[in-house]
Amino acid sequence: MTCTFDILARDPRTAARNGRLNTAHGIVETPVFMPVGTQATVKCMTPEELHELKAQIILGNTYHLVIRPGAGLIAKAGGLHKFMSWDGPILTDSGGYQVFSLAKLRKISKDGVEFQSHVDGATLFLGPCESIAAQVALGSDIAMAFDECPHWPCDREYACSSLELTVEWAARCREQKLADGQLLFGIVQGSVYPELRERGARELVAIGFDGYAIGGVSVGEPPAEMVRQVEMTVPFLPPDKPRYLMGVGTPPQILDMIACGVDMMDCVLPTRVARNGTIFTTSGTYSIRNAQFQDDFGPLEEGCECYACRRFTRAYIRHLCKANEILGLRLMTWHNLHLYLSTLRRAREAIAAGRFEEFRREFASAYTEGIGVDESV
Amino acid sequence: MTCTFDILARDPRTAARNGRLNTAHGIVETPVFMPVGTQATVKCMTPEELHELKAQIILGNTYHLVIRPGAGLIAKAGGLHKFMSWDGPILTDSGGYQVFSLAKLRKISKDGVEFQSHVDGATLFLGPCESIAAQVALGSDIAMAFDECPHWPCDREYACSSLELTVEWAARCREQKLADGQLLFGIVQGSVYPELRERGARELVAIGFDGYAIGGVSVGEPPAEMVRQVEMTVPFLPPDKPRYLMGVGTPPQILDMIACGVDMMDCVLPTRVARNGTIFTTSGTYSIRNAQFQDDFGPLEEGCECYACRRFTRAYIRHLCKANEILGLRLMTWHNLHLYLSTLRRAREAIAAGRFEEFRREFASAYTEGIGVDESV
Repeated sequence: MTCTFDILARDPRTAARNGRLNTAHGIVETPVFMPVGTQATVKCMTPEELHELKAQIILGNTYHLVIRPGAGLIAKAGGLHKFMSWDGPILTDSGGYQVFSLAKLRKISKDGVEFQSHVDGATLFLGPCESIAAQVALGSDIAMAFDECPHWPCDREYACSSLELTVEWAARCREQKLADGQLLFGIVQGSVYPELRERGARELVAIGFDGYAIGGVSVGEPPAEMVRQVEMTVPFLPPDKPRYLMGVGTPPQILDMIACGVDMMDCVLPTRVARNGTIFTTSGTYSIRNAQFQDDFGPLEEGCECYACRRFTRAYIRHLCKANEILGLRLMTWHNLHLYLSTLRRAREAIAAGRFEEFRREFASAYTEGIGVDESV
Repeated sequence: MTCTFDILARDPRTAARNGRLNTAHGIVETPVFMPVGTQATVKCMTPEELHELKAQIILGNTYHLVIRPGAGLIAKAGGLHKFMSWDGPILTDSGGYQVFSLAKLRKISKDGVEFQSHVDGATLFLGPCESIAAQVALGSDIAMAFDECPHWPCDREYACSSLELTVEWAARCREQKLADGQLLFGIVQGSVYPELRERGARELVAIGFDGYAIGGVSVGEPPAEMVRQVEMTVPFLPPDKPRYLMGVGTPPQILDMIACGVDMMDCVLPTRVARNGTIFTTSGTYSIRNAQFQDDFGPLEEGCECYACRRFTRAYIRHLCKANEILGLRLMTWHNLHLYLSTLRRAREAIAAGRFEEFRREFASAYTEGIGVDESV
């Protein structure tokens, strides 16, 4: 197979790099932000709108899709791309995270996890074999190894045995037959322990994957702890494979992680908080619900070229938001995704121009956390 | 001013007619169905999508808009068209219906109704003067007279005094200064009493309006009773002015009412039941939630050319619906509006071809009420 991942440019002052990832449904230019399409839909958005926003690749959640509507139905539909009418690349996570965070846990064995669905309480089993089989049925372009994602904090002993299980499961995933052209990424765990993170990375590299994710972050730890876990892992990941940091983050965090050598990120943040009225801008976040916007007839963000900003005012979108109108959710989601995706575009341009650190610092200094980002939906 | 309403064609066998209504924001070809945009948005839809669906005119609810976000704010935005970015014609109702159905009623006087907002309990007053002033501030193309809409059933004595108040308020509305180019329609009440309906029509015509609505229907009466009220009213409405039947109906009902000489109708039905998973088709309605559609990879309606049917399957939309996903609400709303608007287009074509009765009968015989239309949202 042709080279999956090419490095196109390296920033002179940071570990940031531009890459090109070849997938069965097209090329992804990295660094990239992946909108999350949990239940076979990026909430509120049509595929055409995602293309208009220049989203290159989206994420689907295997756990949710296995529970509803079921991998079998989606396979019957011809795979997830056909089911949801998205013809671009799709990355599916393995279900490992949700099994440990959402499901009512029954029991962990060497073969996987028996659990009760959070939707209807049905007893299900998900392990490396079942997860890969589901992702094959879904037909994603990038599948993720089934891992155990420990909570934070967790003691070293638990982190160690959890890592061992994750590595064993990763090896089992690697043995499974994938769909044509489907890539497989491993997930490095190890919690906050440097030697475990190093060990996890080395052992996954020894198995050999198409890319490497850093998991077990954004699970409640302080931001600085998240960064440390990335810094203690990346040096042990091969430079010629993509690095995927799962579940991160705010725009400044994303730029910081790119500077660390991360190529891919996903996060529900822009879409989830949009539905609560929190607007992302290059200056930071704010809540459209704030009274000061009641008669503000400017756009969500001055100078933004997204559909919401070209056509509608803060006053109107605030009205929609307070009136619980679906169009409001659409417009805020649209804008937030535009902010994220355009920021990543600018990041790639800055890397190509050899000025990423300057871009990152300018962005960070202009960006202020706003009136309390409410992430609890 | 040029002629507001031209009759372009009369069906030879029914009272149906094609018309052209000139408004400040464009021409409306009648008979027409008006999607309802209660809170300055047709739920789920952007203005572009409404144009794509060839919606000619939409309805805004004065009561809701006065309460939130307020007529003053909308005026400050430049009017409702600018506020919601819809550049086509808008009809605003007067608030009369909601005041009597939604608000916690305080008291009726000769000048209007003092009531408590259903949103925040604030004490408000709405009468002919306030209603027209609000509609002027909103800047709609067609304003409605402020009326009293009696419940069904109501005794003759109540219907009579209610009608007298409605006619007096209509006269007061007529005296108000309207916005440039704004039309004003009167609303005929009279409940189920033929002599009251006749009296209401004659007295409104004597005052003189740009169009005449039949109100007080679709308030719980049996469908046959609704038809009777229309039949007892239309003969007394001038043939050269548009007739607007408020709050009606299913597609077959709409065609029946066109045959009676009705030119304009609005109803929340297609959009409201869409959000419950009820799909309108030329064969009738059905619920997408039904298990038989779980693996049905055909469109919502075979042969339908709407976006939802061209791009997505029943199985997927059913999944979205059961997963409470907003994209599902969008697609079902889209399809139902397309069904309604395309049916009206076909009606106009049939009238122009002199075969409306044939079209109406064919449509009715193909149409079967489906698996229980759930109108309770």
